[in-house]
Amino acid sequence: MLTYSFDHIGKMPLYEYLYRCIRKDIEAGRLQVGEKLPSKRALARQLGISTITVEGAYGQLTAEGYCRSLPKRGFYVTEAARVIQREAAQGARAGEQAVLAREAEPPQEDEAPAYFVDFAEGGVNAENFPFTTWTKLLRQVVAEEADALIERSPGFGAIPLRQAIAAHLAHFRGLVVRPEQIVIGAGTEYLYSLLVQFFGRDKRFCVENPGYGRIRKIYESCGACCLRADLDEAGVWPAELCAEQAQILHISPSHHFPTGIIMPISRRYELLGWAAAAPDRYIIEDDYDSEFRLTGRPIPTLMGIDVEGRVIYMNTFSKSLTPTIRISYLVLPEALVGPFTRRLGFYSCTVSNFEQYTLARFIESGAFEKHINRMRTLYRKRREKLLSLLRRSRFARNMEIVEHGSGLHFLVRFHRAGSDASVVSRLAAQGIHMRSLSSYYAASSPEEREKASDMQHLFVLDYSSVEESRMPEAVRRIERLWERP
Amino acid sequence: MLTYSFDHIGKMPLYEYLYRCIRKDIEAGRLQVGEKLPSKRALARQLGISTITVEGAYGQLTAEGYCRSLPKRGFYVTEAARVIQREAAQGARAGEQAVLAREAEPPQEDEAPAYFVDFAEGGVNAENFPFTTWTKLLRQVVAEEADALIERSPGFGAIPLRQAIAAHLAHFRGLVVRPEQIVIGAGTEYLYSLLVQFFGRDKRFCVENPGYGRIRKIYESCGACCLRADLDEAGVWPAELCAEQAQILHISPSHHFPTGIIMPISRRYELLGWAAAAPDRYIIEDDYDSEFRLTGRPIPTLMGIDVEGRVIYMNTFSKSLTPTIRISYLVLPEALVGPFTRRLGFYSCTVSNFEQYTLARFIESGAFEKHINRMRTLYRKRREKLLSLLRRSRFARNMEIVEHGSGLHFLVRFHRAGSDASVVSRLAAQGIHMRSLSSYYAASSPEEREKASDMQHLFVLDYSSVEESRMPEAVRRIERLWERP
Repeated sequence: MLTYSFDHIGKMPLYEYLYRCIRKDIEAGRLQVGEKLPSKRALARQLGISTITVEGAYGQLTAEGYCRSLPKRGFYVTEAARVIQREAAQGARAGEQAVLAREAEPPQEDEAPAYFVDFAEGGVNAENFPFTTWTKLLRQVVAEEADALIERSPGFGAIPLRQAIAAHLAHFRGLVVRPEQIVIGAGTEYLYSLLVQFFGRDKRFCVENPGYGRIRKIYESCGACCLRADLDEAGVWPAELCAEQAQILHISPSHHFPTGIIMPISRRYELLGWAAAAPDRYIIEDDYDSEFRLTGRPIPTLMGIDVEGRVIYMNTFSKSLTPTIRISYLVLPEALVGPFTRRLGFYSCTVSNFEQYTLARFIESGAFEKHINRMRTLYRKRREKLLSLLRRSRFARNMEIVEHGSGLHFLVRFHRAGSDASVVSRLAAQGIHMRSLSSYYAASSPEEREKASDMQHLFVLDYSSVEESRMPEAVRRIERLWERP
Repeated sequence: MLTYSFDHIGKMPLYEYLYRCIRKDIEAGRLQVGEKLPSKRALARQLGISTITVEGAYGQLTAEGYCRSLPKRGFYVTEAARVIQREAAQGARAGEQAVLAREAEPPQEDEAPAYFVDFAEGGVNAENFPFTTWTKLLRQVVAEEADALIERSPGFGAIPLRQAIAAHLAHFRGLVVRPEQIVIGAGTEYLYSLLVQFFGRDKRFCVENPGYGRIRKIYESCGACCLRADLDEAGVWPAELCAEQAQILHISPSHHFPTGIIMPISRRYELLGWAAAAPDRYIIEDDYDSEFRLTGRPIPTLMGIDVEGRVIYMNTFSKSLTPTIRISYLVLPEALVGPFTRRLGFYSCTVSNFEQYTLARFIESGAFEKHINRMRTLYRKRREKLLSLLRRSRFARNMEIVEHGSGLHFLVRFHRAGSDASVVSRLAAQGIHMRSLSSYYAASSPEEREKASDMQHLFVLDYSSVEESRMPEAVRRIERLWERP
């Protein structure tokens, strides 16, 4: 019998706490492979919680492969869970485990997905990835450039890919750079770590607050001090950067995540002015989803209007292609190419030649442009469908949509739906993953906590992975936030 | 007219210094695209050096695409050089450069390769990479697991690949681990940076001296203090580690690079004893070419005989497959899995799903084992051929071969061939790339400098990328070291 205390739950949603308790029991071997979990109703009654909460926890366990649901029979601990059972592993005799590992089944496809829809984690649906073109180009590369594939690329990336990206940037972003200014890396996270090594751990980095918590985490894990700058409606303010003695500022002026702010040109020049005012100030311009500006005219990059060489531009193919091909790049201002090469040129490139050469052809052949256009149309339809469903919803008067017409997410304010934590957990229990704006805001001082309370009731909707066919049902589930129990 | 002073050449080989001077002139635009370089003979006469030195420099420039050789006409600065001309780039009008980049020609295939043979840089020849199997498996993966390819993998790598590696390690190395202990990363260099983040920059890392200079460079670039431990005939000595207060020791006990030392079991236990004697001591076991032990019985891994959980095992597919598919992994001792996950679990995996899933199938299907066996046969033949050519060479009495029957390189001592620097530069001028053992040794104290002088006249021969057909000519060129001028 599963008995858990909810005394130490803290701020975690109830369903997530329950999921963690059960997972711990599976990992520790207290729940054995093949063992049946109690029915949702029974466990809910026993713990004095709602069946929806239990459903949320079981859904998560199923999605992660710890258990599986057999129709009309209930939930069982899977074989797959066995390989992650520490007790089992430690007790097993030598040799048996490799066999176990082989036998372990991945989660079955007929199991329920983690969430019915996920507005928190963007992503690409498999049916939208251009597999046919990609594999065709890869075969071409293998047939025509086998030698190049096996020969080590320069540390900053294969020349054909850097040439293709330079041409792409000139065409799509009006950003004219030499291929030699481009550094290819296995994901932006890896490139952040190079930037810390380059600028030095003694520099004061600064990120936007709210923002992707991970960026700060990486700078700090790499040993740099990382400040957080609050935003007004135009983004980060130079005055605060000066007050905090920030040196390396990391921002997304084209489309801030999660607020959606598009930094106006005046603020851009102010920030360039801030950077130019001292010799060791630089701006890292993270242009992560600029390909998907869906309305209005494109805004020039910070790097494009910078004449002082203080902006490092960064972008990724995670949004425009798929996050599971790990290719990102940064563009160095001309004057930093030499110092960067001298300091970090000894590193090997982290991206496979096979994918660098394939991507180079994908861009050169025009397939990338075609793909972006197709995805832009798809995303525009998704955005419009979702916006229209929300506007026509039964509780539309309780929803206020905050959108700036850019990128792959927007904000929505829910009135009279309860606290952020309760909205998130009630939605999760229904299979809807959504994060509140406040959860992206790190508040440590009293002023920051006050600011955080201003952000209440705002939620981030990233619709990039949400299929249109699921949207009506998703909105129906959201409507339940206002239904009487 | 090219005029260079050799006053500040330092310890650099003459040909390399000359190559750098000319490259600088090309990059700075002092030598223009299409410009003809002076003939080898003319430049040699003008600078008072040998034509062989000029040949070495021109060869390097050609290999890197800065110039090309037209039969019977001489050497010309290429179009490709244009994209790396800083002056040209800065002067060009907006928009023109992306076009330039597109037009830039890569080095032509009919140009001479960088070296006739390269004993310094190991590698894989394109004809030995299993392209057909690899692309077949990739197509299978795309056809059967498209969803998995597009869905984010766990941060430490896709489960199927970690399972396949666990089974492989059990089978080939007798190392029994759970897939959850394995962390996949885009190359060992990236994994080193994770280890610094995990253990902390306040720890005293220690590498072998002589050794791969790059390992120390990376630890230091990531902010850790990195000591160097001298070796005796069995490897690093525990007493020195204690004296230096080392904490995290990075070694290759199976086959040390470059000395070829295979650490005897007694020293292994001594080092495990050293690690167990204090709570914060760990050993990183770098098993980079263990698949290619060509003679004798395999030696168990340090991790396999460690009962205290103080060894992190590392390996790579760079040697066994190709360095241009960037996949390496580390295996954590059971007790570090939790702390490692808590500290670094937020990172995204740096390897593309496409290649993780393809490699998983490559291993599972037995193709990897087959490939290793094929390569082992090939390398054994290469090794034997090269050894036999050296032993039968006209100057065999001046060569002493030092080999331990393991891995992809061995040492050779050249008697009466001159200083290490002169041997290296004379060989380079003939298209033979070879590094001296002493060049892998970092000497800063007088004792170390004395030790370095003991290493004189020893050279490292990595034959993994040297085709058999070129070996007779390579040995003929080596023989010229002893010919009268």
